[in-house]
Amino acid sequence: MTQFTDPRTLSKADLESGSIFAPKFDANGLVTALTVEAGSNEVLMVAHMNAEAIAETLRSGHATYWSRSRGKLWKKGETSGELQELVELRTDCDQDALVVVVRQTGHGAACHTGRKSCFYRRVEMIDGDIRLSDTGDAPLFDPEEVYGR
Amino acid sequence: MTQFTDPRTLSKADLESGSIFAPKFDANGLVTALTVEAGSNEVLMVAHMNAEAIAETLRSGHATYWSRSRGKLWKKGETSGELQELVELRTDCDQDALVVVVRQTGHGAACHTGRKSCFYRRVEMIDGDIRLSDTGDAPLFDPEEVYGR
Repeated sequence: MTQFTDPRTLSKADLESGSIFAPKFDANGLVTALTVEAGSNEVLMVAHMNAEAIAETLRSGHATYWSRSRGKLWKKGETSGELQELVELRTDCDQDALVVVVRQTGHGAACHTGRKSCFYRRVEMIDGDIRLSDTGDAPLFDPEEVYGR
Repeated sequence: MTQFTDPRTLSKADLESGSIFAPKFDANGLVTALTVEAGSNEVLMVAHMNAEAIAETLRSGHATYWSRSRGKLWKKGETSGELQELVELRTDCDQDALVVVVRQTGHGAACHTGRKSCFYRRVEMIDGDIRLSDTGDAPLFDPEEVYGR
């Protein structure tokens, strides 16, 4: 089991400015992880990491998350081939969120729909009505072929 | 009260490909919101939005979050002057996260520490030991002056 410093044992100054990594996990032992593409900074996806996923990501050099739906470690791309090579991991001021900077391999699609990014729809208010509009990002692979569904 | 479509009433296809906005709120009525700078795509901060915050952001054109610590709507920058002008709001495939694309006004600092971004520290594994290292992003304002603490 990977163990990190309990953030409650640190002063606010140490938590926000120090060099001790003390991730503030939620009740389920998870922190939010935002994955962005190295170079372009484009947000690819949002997922979650537990202590083991963080350690495994740093150890292996491949983004590894905690799958809440499957209840297990999830090496991104292990099924689809869309592995994510770690370029840099960052934490925020209060250490309850991470930014995972990656090189997206495979077809270059982080989203299970086959698109590069999960954020392919805009939320717009038109005449007081809130709707989604597609940005037109085309799928880079066919999910049915890759996942067989 | 702002009400959106309950995502459980939509098919997976409609949730992931449709034009109906049906945010999947957590048990506290919140979705994760990642704020990025228009143009550079730099991740500035991570916060949360409830239904009201989403509607108010779209209505006002200024990023408005739900402050979990204060338990109320939080128009970003109302104290510090670091308002965020909305450029675009995006949702992800399963509609449980938002990307808020903004123009950061004021000193250009989204973080309460006075820095542009909250993600000013790298998480690094060196000889098996996980530590933080500062990226060197300097504060753009003095938090003690702005927040009086």
